[in-house]
Amino acid sequence: MIKRGGRGRAGRRPGAPDTRGEILAAARAEFAESAYDRTSIRAIAGRAGVDPALIHHYFGNKEQLFLEAMEIRFAPAEIAGEILSGPMDGVGERAVRTFFAVWGDPVRRAPVLAMLRSAMSNEAAAALLRQFAQRTILTRVVAGLDLPDRELRVELVVSHLIGLALVRYVVKLEPLASLPDEDVIALVGPVIQRYFDV
Amino acid sequence: MIKRGGRGRAGRRPGAPDTRGEILAAARAEFAESAYDRTSIRAIAGRAGVDPALIHHYFGNKEQLFLEAMEIRFAPAEIAGEILSGPMDGVGERAVRTFFAVWGDPVRRAPVLAMLRSAMSNEAAAALLRQFAQRTILTRVVAGLDLPDRELRVELVVSHLIGLALVRYVVKLEPLASLPDEDVIALVGPVIQRYFDV
Repeated sequence: MIKRGGRGRAGRRPGAPDTRGEILAAARAEFAESAYDRTSIRAIAGRAGVDPALIHHYFGNKEQLFLEAMEIRFAPAEIAGEILSGPMDGVGERAVRTFFAVWGDPVRRAPVLAMLRSAMSNEAAAALLRQFAQRTILTRVVAGLDLPDRELRVELVVSHLIGLALVRYVVKLEPLASLPDEDVIALVGPVIQRYFDV
Repeated sequence: MIKRGGRGRAGRRPGAPDTRGEILAAARAEFAESAYDRTSIRAIAGRAGVDPALIHHYFGNKEQLFLEAMEIRFAPAEIAGEILSGPMDGVGERAVRTFFAVWGDPVRRAPVLAMLRSAMSNEAAAALLRQFAQRTILTRVVAGLDLPDRELRVELVVSHLIGLALVRYVVKLEPLASLPDEDVIALVGPVIQRYFDV
Protein backbone atom coordinates (compact mmCIF):
# COMPACT_ATOMS: atom_id res chain seq x y z
CA MET A 1 0.00 0.00 0.00
CA ILE A 2 1.21 3.47 -0.86
CA LYS A 3 0.45 6.17 1.64
CA ARG A 4 -0.29 9.60 0.22
CA GLY A 5 1.18 12.74 1.75
CA GLY A 6 3.11 11.87 4.88
CA ARG A 7 6.71 12.71 5.61
CA GLY A 8 6.78 16.53 5.40
CA ARG A 9 9.21 17.67 2.70
CA ALA A 10 7.62 16.18 -0.40
CA GLY A 11 7.93 17.48 -4.00
CA ARG A 12 6.55 20.44 -5.85
CA ARG A 13 3.18 18.80 -6.33
CA PRO A 14 2.82 16.55 -3.32
CA GLY A 15 -0.95 16.61 -3.21
CA ALA A 16 -1.84 16.18 -6.91
CA PRO A 17 -3.95 13.04 -7.15
CA ASP A 18 -2.09 11.64 -10.16
CA THR A 19 1.44 12.37 -8.97
CA ARG A 20 2.17 8.68 -8.50
CA GLY A 21 0.94 7.95 -12.00
CA GLU A 22 3.03 10.77 -13.42
CA ILE A 23 6.13 9.46 -11.68
CA LEU A 24 5.49 5.96 -13.04
CA ALA A 25 4.97 7.32 -16.57
CA ALA A 26 8.17 9.36 -16.30
CA ALA A 27 10.01 6.30 -14.99
CA ARG A 28 8.82 4.15 -17.89
CA ALA A 29 9.92 6.83 -20.36
CA GLU A 30 13.35 7.24 -18.77
CA PHE A 31 13.95 3.49 -18.41
CA ALA A 32 12.98 3.06 -22.06
CA GLU A 33 15.39 5.73 -23.27
CA SER A 34 18.44 4.87 -21.18
CA ALA A 35 19.99 1.73 -19.86
CA TYR A 36 18.73 0.88 -16.38
CA ASP A 37 22.02 1.63 -14.72
CA ARG A 38 22.24 5.05 -16.38
CA THR A 39 18.73 6.08 -15.40
CA SER A 40 18.66 8.21 -12.26
CA ILE A 41 15.88 9.01 -9.82
CA ARG A 42 16.90 12.63 -10.38
CA ALA A 43 16.20 12.39 -14.13
CA ILE A 44 12.86 10.71 -13.52
CA ALA A 45 11.98 13.40 -10.99
CA GLY A 46 12.95 16.08 -13.51
CA ARG A 47 10.72 14.58 -16.17
CA ALA A 48 7.80 14.19 -13.76
CA GLY A 49 8.30 17.68 -12.36
CA VAL A 50 8.59 16.50 -8.77
CA ASP A 51 11.24 16.49 -6.09
CA PRO A 52 13.41 13.33 -6.04
CA ALA A 53 12.57 12.96 -2.36
CA LEU A 54 8.94 12.40 -3.31
CA ILE A 55 9.91 9.46 -5.50
CA HIS A 56 11.90 7.91 -2.67
CA HIS A 57 8.94 8.51 -0.40
CA TYR A 58 6.46 6.85 -2.74
CA PHE A 59 8.53 4.04 -4.17
CA GLY A 60 11.67 3.53 -2.10
CA ASN A 61 14.71 2.98 -4.31
CA LYS A 62 15.25 2.86 -8.07
CA GLU A 63 14.89 -0.90 -8.20
CA GLN A 64 11.49 -0.84 -6.53
CA LEU A 65 10.38 1.99 -8.80
CA PHE A 66 11.46 0.02 -11.85
CA LEU A 67 9.62 -3.09 -10.78
CA GLU A 68 6.43 -1.18 -10.08
CA ALA A 69 6.60 0.80 -13.34
CA MET A 70 7.13 -2.35 -15.36
CA GLU A 71 4.57 -4.42 -13.52
CA ILE A 72 1.81 -1.96 -14.37
CA ARG A 73 2.89 -1.76 -17.99
CA PHE A 74 2.83 -5.52 -18.42
CA ALA A 75 -0.27 -6.52 -16.50
CA PRO A 76 1.47 -9.81 -15.74
CA ALA A 77 -1.50 -11.37 -13.98
CA GLU A 78 -3.57 -10.95 -17.13
CA ILE A 79 -0.78 -12.26 -19.34
CA ALA A 80 -0.34 -15.35 -17.19
CA GLY A 81 -4.11 -15.81 -17.16
CA GLU A 82 -4.31 -15.69 -20.95
CA ILE A 83 -1.51 -18.21 -21.36
CA LEU A 84 -3.02 -20.61 -18.86
CA SER A 85 -6.67 -20.35 -19.88
CA GLY A 86 -7.83 -23.08 -22.23
CA PRO A 87 -6.67 -26.59 -23.03
CA MET A 88 -3.07 -27.60 -22.26
CA ASP A 89 -2.40 -28.59 -25.87
CA GLY A 90 -2.78 -24.94 -26.89
CA VAL A 91 -0.55 -23.44 -24.22
CA GLY A 92 2.45 -23.14 -26.57
CA GLU A 93 0.48 -21.20 -29.15
CA ARG A 94 -1.10 -18.98 -26.50
CA ALA A 95 2.34 -18.24 -25.05
CA VAL A 96 3.64 -17.00 -28.42
CA ARG A 97 0.47 -15.04 -29.12
CA THR A 98 0.47 -13.33 -25.73
CA PHE A 99 4.17 -12.58 -25.97
CA PHE A 100 3.70 -10.93 -29.37
CA ALA A 101 0.84 -8.82 -28.03
CA VAL A 102 3.35 -7.23 -25.65
CA TRP A 103 6.57 -7.35 -27.68
CA GLY A 104 4.95 -6.30 -30.94
CA ASP A 105 4.40 -2.90 -29.37
CA PRO A 106 7.64 -0.87 -29.45
CA VAL A 107 6.51 1.24 -26.49
CA ARG A 108 5.93 -1.81 -24.30
CA ARG A 109 9.07 -3.67 -25.28
CA ALA A 110 11.42 -0.67 -25.05
CA PRO A 111 11.95 -0.72 -21.26
CA VAL A 112 12.52 -4.48 -21.18
CA LEU A 113 14.96 -4.22 -24.06
CA ALA A 114 16.75 -1.44 -22.19
CA MET A 115 16.85 -3.66 -19.11
CA LEU A 116 18.19 -6.59 -21.08
CA ARG A 117 20.84 -4.30 -22.58
CA SER A 118 21.97 -3.29 -19.11
CA ALA A 119 21.92 -6.89 -17.93
CA MET A 120 24.44 -7.74 -20.63
CA SER A 121 27.11 -5.55 -19.09
CA ASN A 122 26.11 -5.28 -15.47
CA GLU A 123 25.49 -8.04 -12.95
CA ALA A 124 23.25 -5.87 -10.76
CA ALA A 125 21.02 -5.14 -13.74
CA ALA A 126 20.97 -8.85 -14.60
CA ALA A 127 19.85 -9.64 -11.07
CA LEU A 128 17.08 -7.08 -11.36
CA LEU A 129 15.90 -8.46 -14.69
CA ARG A 130 15.90 -11.93 -13.15
CA GLN A 131 13.78 -10.63 -10.30
CA PHE A 132 11.49 -8.81 -12.74
CA ALA A 133 11.00 -11.95 -14.84
CA GLN A 134 10.31 -14.06 -11.77
CA ARG A 135 7.98 -11.57 -10.14
CA THR A 136 5.95 -10.69 -13.20
CA ILE A 137 5.56 -13.81 -15.28
CA LEU A 138 7.47 -16.90 -14.31
CA THR A 139 6.03 -17.43 -10.84
CA ARG A 140 2.49 -16.89 -12.07
CA VAL A 141 2.73 -19.22 -15.06
CA VAL A 142 4.60 -21.88 -13.11
CA ALA A 143 1.93 -21.78 -10.39
CA GLY A 144 -0.72 -22.55 -13.00
CA LEU A 145 1.03 -25.63 -14.38
CA ASP A 146 0.71 -29.12 -12.97
CA LEU A 147 3.85 -30.66 -14.43
CA PRO A 148 7.18 -31.91 -13.15
CA ASP A 149 10.14 -29.56 -13.70
CA ARG A 150 7.75 -26.75 -14.51
CA GLU A 151 10.21 -23.93 -13.77
CA LEU A 152 12.64 -25.40 -16.27
CA ARG A 153 9.94 -25.86 -18.91
CA VAL A 154 8.77 -22.28 -18.58
CA GLU A 155 12.33 -20.97 -18.74
CA LEU A 156 12.99 -22.89 -21.94
CA VAL A 157 9.85 -21.38 -23.46
CA VAL A 158 10.86 -17.91 -22.30
CA SER A 159 14.31 -18.36 -23.78
CA HIS A 160 12.85 -19.11 -27.19
CA LEU A 161 10.47 -16.15 -27.00
CA ILE A 162 13.14 -13.68 -25.93
CA GLY A 163 15.40 -14.82 -28.76
CA LEU A 164 12.50 -14.58 -31.18
CA ALA A 165 11.87 -10.99 -30.12
CA LEU A 166 15.53 -10.10 -30.58
CA VAL A 167 15.81 -11.70 -34.02
CA ARG A 168 12.48 -10.29 -35.18
CA TYR A 169 12.50 -6.78 -33.72
CA VAL A 170 16.15 -5.94 -33.05
CA VAL A 171 18.47 -7.83 -35.40
CA LYS A 172 15.66 -8.13 -37.96
CA LEU A 173 16.80 -11.20 -39.83
CA GLU A 174 14.75 -11.76 -42.97
CA PRO A 175 12.43 -13.50 -43.75
CA LEU A 176 11.55 -13.92 -40.06
CA ALA A 177 11.35 -10.20 -39.33
CA SER A 178 8.66 -9.55 -41.94
CA LEU A 179 6.60 -12.71 -41.49
CA PRO A 180 3.07 -11.95 -40.25
CA ASP A 181 2.52 -12.62 -36.54
CA GLU A 182 0.00 -15.35 -37.29
CA ASP A 183 2.51 -17.27 -39.41
CA VAL A 184 5.14 -17.08 -36.68
CA ILE A 185 2.60 -18.19 -34.08
CA ALA A 186 1.66 -21.17 -36.27
CA LEU A 187 5.34 -22.13 -36.65
CA VAL A 188 6.62 -21.56 -33.12
CA GLY A 189 3.53 -22.50 -31.09
CA PRO A 190 3.65 -26.26 -31.80
CA VAL A 191 7.42 -26.29 -31.24
CA ILE A 192 7.39 -24.72 -27.78
CA GLN A 193 4.31 -26.82 -27.00
CA ARG A 194 6.81 -29.68 -26.80
CA TYR A 195 8.17 -28.14 -23.60
CA PHE A 196 4.75 -28.58 -22.01
CA ASP A 197 4.33 -32.19 -23.06
CA VAL A 198 5.25 -34.66 -20.37
CA MET B 1 43.53 -9.72 -49.56
CA ILE B 2 45.56 -7.59 -47.17
CA LYS B 3 48.65 -5.93 -48.54
CA ARG B 4 51.57 -5.48 -46.18
CA GLY B 5 53.54 -2.26 -45.98
CA GLY B 6 52.45 0.22 -48.65
CA ARG B 7 51.10 3.70 -48.04
CA GLY B 8 54.03 5.45 -46.31
CA ARG B 9 53.03 6.64 -42.83
CA ALA B 10 52.19 3.37 -41.15
CA GLY B 11 52.32 2.61 -37.40
CA ARG B 12 55.05 2.25 -34.88
CA ARG B 13 55.69 -1.36 -35.85
CA PRO B 14 54.81 -1.49 -39.51
CA GLY B 15 57.03 -4.40 -40.39
CA ALA B 16 56.43 -6.77 -37.46
CA PRO B 17 55.14 -10.02 -38.94
CA ASP B 18 52.36 -10.41 -36.34
CA THR B 19 51.10 -6.83 -36.40
CA ARG B 20 47.88 -7.86 -38.11
CA GLY B 21 47.30 -10.56 -35.52
CA GLU B 22 48.00 -8.13 -32.70
CA ILE B 23 45.51 -5.66 -34.11
CA LEU B 24 42.88 -8.38 -34.40
CA ALA B 25 43.54 -9.52 -30.80
CA ALA B 26 43.29 -5.92 -29.58
CA ALA B 27 40.08 -5.43 -31.57
CA ARG B 28 38.51 -8.54 -30.05
CA ALA B 29 39.44 -7.38 -26.57
CA GLU B 30 38.06 -3.86 -27.11
CA PHE B 31 34.85 -5.05 -28.77
CA ALA B 32 34.34 -7.45 -25.86
CA GLU B 33 34.73 -4.73 -23.26
CA SER B 34 32.70 -1.95 -24.85
CA ALA B 35 29.58 -1.73 -26.93
CA TYR B 36 30.36 -1.79 -30.63
CA ASP B 37 29.47 1.84 -31.21
CA ARG B 38 31.65 3.00 -28.32
CA THR B 39 34.70 1.10 -29.48
CA SER B 40 37.08 3.30 -31.46
CA ILE B 41 39.83 2.49 -33.91
CA ARG B 42 41.96 4.81 -31.77
CA ALA B 43 41.40 2.68 -28.65
CA ILE B 44 42.17 -0.51 -30.56
CA ALA B 45 45.32 1.10 -31.95
CA GLY B 46 46.32 2.16 -28.44
CA ARG B 47 45.92 -1.37 -27.11
CA ALA B 48 47.81 -2.90 -30.03
CA GLY B 49 50.55 -0.27 -29.81
CA VAL B 50 50.18 0.81 -33.43
CA ASP B 51 49.17 3.94 -35.30
CA PRO B 52 45.43 4.13 -36.10
CA ALA B 53 46.35 4.74 -39.73
CA LEU B 54 47.86 1.27 -39.88
CA ILE B 55 44.55 -0.26 -38.84
CA HIS B 56 42.74 1.67 -41.56
CA HIS B 57 45.38 0.55 -44.00
CA TYR B 58 45.10 -3.12 -43.08
CA PHE B 59 41.37 -3.42 -42.44
CA GLY B 60 39.55 -0.42 -43.87
CA ASN B 61 36.90 0.83 -41.46
CA LYS B 62 35.72 -0.29 -38.03
CA GLU B 63 32.96 -2.46 -39.46
CA GLN B 64 35.36 -4.42 -41.63
CA LEU B 65 37.77 -4.82 -38.72
CA PHE B 66 34.95 -6.13 -36.54
CA LEU B 67 33.81 -8.65 -39.10
CA GLU B 68 37.32 -9.91 -39.62
CA ALA B 69 38.09 -10.11 -35.89
CA MET B 70 34.91 -12.06 -35.15
CA GLU B 71 35.20 -14.43 -38.04
CA ILE B 72 38.56 -15.63 -36.85
CA ARG B 73 37.22 -16.12 -33.36
CA PHE B 74 34.31 -18.22 -34.55
CA ALA B 75 35.68 -20.35 -37.38
CA PRO B 76 32.20 -20.28 -38.92
CA ALA B 77 32.99 -22.71 -41.71
CA GLU B 78 33.88 -25.36 -39.14
CA ILE B 79 30.81 -24.60 -37.04
CA ALA B 80 28.53 -24.94 -40.05
CA GLY B 81 30.34 -28.13 -41.02
CA GLU B 82 29.81 -29.65 -37.58
CA ILE B 83 26.11 -28.80 -37.57
CA LEU B 84 25.58 -30.23 -41.04
CA SER B 85 27.71 -33.37 -40.75
CA GLY B 86 25.75 -36.50 -39.90
CA PRO B 87 22.13 -37.57 -40.24
CA MET B 88 19.41 -34.93 -40.61
CA ASP B 89 17.52 -36.23 -37.58
CA GLY B 90 20.41 -35.14 -35.36
CA VAL B 91 20.85 -31.64 -36.76
CA GLY B 92 18.86 -30.03 -33.92
CA GLU B 93 21.03 -31.60 -31.25
CA ARG B 94 24.22 -30.78 -33.14
CA ALA B 95 23.12 -27.16 -33.49
CA VAL B 96 22.65 -26.81 -29.71
CA ARG B 97 25.91 -28.63 -28.98
CA THR B 98 27.94 -26.52 -31.40
CA PHE B 99 26.35 -23.33 -30.16
CA PHE B 100 27.23 -24.19 -26.55
CA ALA B 101 30.82 -24.92 -27.54
CA VAL B 102 31.12 -21.28 -28.60
CA TRP B 103 28.74 -19.55 -26.17
CA GLY B 104 29.81 -21.54 -23.15
CA ASP B 105 33.16 -19.74 -23.37
CA PRO B 106 32.87 -16.22 -21.87
CA VAL B 107 35.80 -14.99 -23.96
CA ARG B 108 34.20 -16.12 -27.21
CA ARG B 109 30.71 -14.88 -26.45
CA ALA B 110 31.73 -11.47 -25.06
CA PRO B 111 32.15 -9.62 -28.36
CA VAL B 112 28.89 -10.98 -29.77
CA LEU B 113 27.08 -10.00 -26.59
CA ALA B 114 28.61 -6.53 -26.89
CA MET B 115 27.41 -6.37 -30.46
CA LEU B 116 23.91 -7.48 -29.50
CA ARG B 117 23.88 -4.83 -26.78
CA SER B 118 24.76 -2.15 -29.31
CA ALA B 119 22.15 -3.47 -31.73
CA MET B 120 19.47 -2.91 -29.11
CA SER B 121 19.99 0.84 -29.16
CA ASN B 122 21.50 1.54 -32.53
CA GLU B 123 20.16 0.65 -35.97
CA ALA B 124 23.62 0.74 -37.56
CA ALA B 125 24.89 -1.78 -35.04
CA ALA B 126 21.82 -3.94 -35.67
CA ALA B 127 22.56 -3.87 -39.39
CA LEU B 128 26.13 -4.90 -38.69
CA LEU B 129 25.05 -7.77 -36.46
CA ARG B 130 22.62 -8.87 -39.16
CA GLN B 131 25.47 -8.83 -41.67
CA PHE B 132 27.73 -10.66 -39.23
CA ALA B 133 25.14 -13.39 -38.60
CA GLN B 134 24.49 -13.80 -42.31
CA ARG B 135 28.10 -13.79 -43.32
CA THR B 136 29.40 -16.11 -40.65
CA ILE B 137 26.79 -18.75 -39.99
CA LEU B 138 23.41 -18.41 -41.63
CA THR B 139 24.48 -18.50 -45.25
CA ARG B 140 26.70 -21.50 -44.67
CA VAL B 141 24.14 -23.56 -42.79
CA VAL B 142 21.34 -22.63 -45.18
CA ALA B 143 23.50 -23.66 -48.13
CA GLY B 144 23.92 -27.13 -46.62
CA LEU B 145 20.20 -27.75 -46.17
CA ASP B 146 17.92 -29.16 -48.83
CA LEU B 147 14.58 -28.00 -47.45
CA PRO B 148 11.90 -25.48 -48.41
CA ASP B 149 11.94 -22.20 -46.44
CA ARG B 150 15.37 -23.05 -45.14
CA GLU B 151 16.33 -19.45 -44.24
CA LEU B 152 13.25 -19.18 -42.05
CA ARG B 153 13.92 -22.53 -40.37
CA VAL B 154 17.50 -21.60 -39.57
CA GLU B 155 16.44 -18.20 -38.21
CA LEU B 156 13.89 -19.82 -35.90
CA VAL B 157 16.59 -22.15 -34.59
CA VAL B 158 18.99 -19.24 -34.14
CA SER B 159 16.33 -17.28 -32.27
CA HIS B 160 15.91 -20.09 -29.77
CA LEU B 161 19.66 -20.47 -29.31
CA ILE B 162 20.27 -16.75 -28.81
CA GLY B 163 17.49 -16.59 -26.23
CA LEU B 164 18.88 -19.68 -24.53
CA ALA B 165 22.29 -18.04 -24.26
CA LEU B 166 20.78 -14.88 -22.77
CA VAL B 167 18.66 -16.73 -20.22
CA ARG B 168 21.49 -19.12 -19.31
CA TYR B 169 24.54 -16.85 -19.30
CA VAL B 170 23.21 -13.31 -18.85
CA VAL B 171 19.89 -13.29 -16.98
CA LYS B 172 20.78 -16.61 -15.34
CA LEU B 173 17.33 -17.90 -14.57
CA GLU B 174 17.45 -20.97 -12.35
CA PRO B 175 17.26 -23.93 -12.74
CA LEU B 176 18.17 -23.45 -16.43
CA ALA B 177 21.39 -21.53 -15.74
CA SER B 178 22.93 -24.32 -13.67
CA LEU B 179 21.72 -27.29 -15.68
CA PRO B 180 24.62 -29.25 -17.22
CA ASP B 181 25.15 -28.62 -20.94
CA GLU B 182 24.30 -32.21 -21.80
CA ASP B 183 20.91 -31.96 -20.10
CA VAL B 184 20.08 -28.76 -21.96
CA ILE B 185 21.19 -30.32 -25.24
CA ALA B 186 18.95 -33.34 -24.55
CA LEU B 187 15.99 -31.05 -23.85
CA VAL B 188 16.40 -28.42 -26.56
CA GLY B 189 17.85 -30.56 -29.36
CA PRO B 190 14.67 -32.55 -30.12
CA VAL B 191 12.56 -29.38 -29.88
CA ILE B 192 14.52 -27.34 -32.43
CA GLN B 193 14.80 -30.48 -34.54
CA ARG B 194 11.13 -29.82 -35.30
CA TYR B 195 12.20 -26.82 -37.34
CA PHE B 196 14.16 -29.12 -39.63
CA ASP B 197 11.33 -31.59 -40.13
CA VAL B 198 9.40 -31.03 -43.31
